[in-house]
Amino acid sequence: MREAMSEHLQPQRTIDELKELRELTGDAAGAQRVAFTEPWARARAWLRSILAKMPVEVHCDEAGNLWATLEGESPKALIIGGHLDSVPNGGWLDGCLNVLAGVEIMRRVIAEYGGKPPITIRLVDWADEEGARFGKSLFGSSACSGNLNLDEARVLIDRNGISLPAALAAHDIIFENVKASGKELEHAAAYLELHIEQGPVLLDLNLSLGTVLGTFGVERHAVTFHGQAAHSGSTPMNRRKDAFLAAAKMSLEIYEIAERSGQGVCTIGSCTTQPGIVTSVVEECRITLDQRHLDAGALALMLAEAEAASQRFAGEGNVKVTWERIWQIAPRPFHPTLIDFCDEAIRETCGISHRLPSGPLHDAAEMAAAGVPTVMMFVQSLHGISHNRIEDTEEQHLAESVSAFDRLADKTMRWLVETSP
Amino acid sequence: MREAMSEHLQPQRTIDELKELRELTGDAAGAQRVAFTEPWARARAWLRSILAKMPVEVHCDEAGNLWATLEGESPKALIIGGHLDSVPNGGWLDGCLNVLAGVEIMRRVIAEYGGKPPITIRLVDWADEEGARFGKSLFGSSACSGNLNLDEARVLIDRNGISLPAALAAHDIIFENVKASGKELEHAAAYLELHIEQGPVLLDLNLSLGTVLGTFGVERHAVTFHGQAAHSGSTPMNRRKDAFLAAAKMSLEIYEIAERSGQGVCTIGSCTTQPGIVTSVVEECRITLDQRHLDAGALALMLAEAEAASQRFAGEGNVKVTWERIWQIAPRPFHPTLIDFCDEAIRETCGISHRLPSGPLHDAAEMAAAGVPTVMMFVQSLHGISHNRIEDTEEQHLAESVSAFDRLADKTMRWLVETSP
Repeated sequence: MREAMSEHLQPQRTIDELKELRELTGDAAGAQRVAFTEPWARARAWLRSILAKMPVEVHCDEAGNLWATLEGESPKALIIGGHLDSVPNGGWLDGCLNVLAGVEIMRRVIAEYGGKPPITIRLVDWADEEGARFGKSLFGSSACSGNLNLDEARVLIDRNGISLPAALAAHDIIFENVKASGKELEHAAAYLELHIEQGPVLLDLNLSLGTVLGTFGVERHAVTFHGQAAHSGSTPMNRRKDAFLAAAKMSLEIYEIAERSGQGVCTIGSCTTQPGIVTSVVEECRITLDQRHLDAGALALMLAEAEAASQRFAGEGNVKVTWERIWQIAPRPFHPTLIDFCDEAIRETCGISHRLPSGPLHDAAEMAAAGVPTVMMFVQSLHGISHNRIEDTEEQHLAESVSAFDRLADKTMRWLVETSP
Repeated sequence: MREAMSEHLQPQRTIDELKELRELTGDAAGAQRVAFTEPWARARAWLRSILAKMPVEVHCDEAGNLWATLEGESPKALIIGGHLDSVPNGGWLDGCLNVLAGVEIMRRVIAEYGGKPPITIRLVDWADEEGARFGKSLFGSSACSGNLNLDEARVLIDRNGISLPAALAAHDIIFENVKASGKELEHAAAYLELHIEQGPVLLDLNLSLGTVLGTFGVERHAVTFHGQAAHSGSTPMNRRKDAFLAAAKMSLEIYEIAERSGQGVCTIGSCTTQPGIVTSVVEECRITLDQRHLDAGALALMLAEAEAASQRFAGEGNVKVTWERIWQIAPRPFHPTLIDFCDEAIRETCGISHRLPSGPLHDAAEMAAAGVPTVMMFVQSLHGISHNRIEDTEEQHLAESVSAFDRLADKTMRWLVETSP
């Protein structure tokens, strides 16, 4: 690892602060900073105590997002985002690495520019990225981007029957006003987010950092094959209408579909059989199919290929097939110039970079959807595991990530200065 | 259809008696003659009233099997078997066609030989062939053959918590004595059984009757593939340990295995997935595999091929596989001479015969296991459906089955007379 770009950047301080936060809001089972709970509020208060030592304006917006603003000579704003909230029994890095790296970059900028950089630098701690309590992820960022569906969110309840609006009210957030958060983006000129990968790609390549090309679009369907129950002893093989056989063919086919698609992924996560007894051919087999791709056209093609294959297998097996959409979201490709900057920053730090899509969604997807030039940087996850107390990243990689992310922020700031306001 | 062999045989009487029994012990949902219940006892009383008009000795043995004996010049006995008991909401033919065809054949023999045929002719109504109440099929015939496992049967309970011994006692059967039933086979020289096919083979071939080669041996296993759960968005396809993919390959493979085996069948009847959620690669996939073949060696080969395939697919997918035996039973091939007689009898009746194995088990399998030369004749099932109120067979086919079965009984009797006592 090379030196940090500036002597004012101290990546070790970020690591120390991450450990301090873990002590404050975690236990033996992992991080416990579920949004709109007491430990989350405690984490927020701790963050405010850090920001209080810096020459930044701090406020919560109408959606509960916490903003820290270092005013520059231009109102044009570079936004660095993350989230302190976690899943229950979560990891120590997911979301808060982003926030605390942002804090460290602000410190560097303050030191370098004597408190007044050429453009405005803002840090945002999004509210409820995880959606762990109400099942709706990206709450704060989607309120800010305008994508939040108020009618759907209004009726969400947690396992204790508490509604989302009631939980928000306990934290002084008025549900019906959350979209007023959008005004925070008035001068937004770029959005940057650092995150642990939560997957195995960088680990497999033995790389510490990668440039994220965007977040996958998702097509999620239930696919049900309808055959005919028949006695397992008295029904010749060529007479069967075996719903499981047709579904099974899909499992092999999706690997072909994903390979043809380039960077797409397909998953059959669940399979249920009816009547589901040892002495009967399967009458009905339902599988779930989750397809993801960074390119909307490629995603649509993957879906069309899966549909065609299901019809082909149904025809071969003399069964019928029905499809039911469970969920979908469009891909959110990131900004090409910022992608280049991210690559440069990583190469300058580690010598080698790698471009990869993001399978999981992130707040950055909402910023990209809102039209803010956006990019993310990933740092390697050990075990490829997240949302678990064993989530971890080597400290050297964490330090490299803060350094490279700082370089990315610097390149982005210079680009924004050069371009017209 | 040709004329019956003898003017004394009246197949229409069998059909009429089947309808009478249906009226007496069925309802809109189907036959209700579950063994050791009141409707079953009512059916038995009705059968006894028919037998009372014939010169036959009637008694129940220690296992509750009802025997009607027409004493011949030799004690050497030809046994014709069936079962009046049904599943709940069962069909009108399953088991009782056999019994009532046997009654009609006895009438013909009585008329032809003036009440004293050269060998003894016996009719048996086996107790609880279906096992619908206690989950143990072939109760009466396995007690008689000696194969019944008393320790397993002693602890069986029905859904109301009534034990099998208690249910038997209510019908004057002493559980600990049931195997004394075996003495009934002392002079058994051949066993014949007519049954509806309960499958689609004869229907497909547009044939009314077929010769049964024996009952399948069965190997029944749970096969579990153990992979690794992983995020459906962040895990590249080539990094997955997808338990469902390996299990799915088995579905295609068992069709190849069955085809190579000749007349064997293989069924995956159930598939379950863990964690079984749309956003995760399947960590654990459990399927049930039921394999059946008439030849013990071929059955063992089918099992070995499935095991080898599962290991191959596990290796390809970087997952592990474990096997657990659920149940097994050896094949029960029938007697070659009686198979030939059955073919002749069918050809003489319908012009064309067909040989097929039996997927379902029958009481005949217990007689074959006990060393009694045995064969079964199948009559076509409409829809290939049984254990259901829509179970049915064309009346012409029923009449043909009684005629052909009578020819088989005649040939068998003559063979037994010719062979030494």
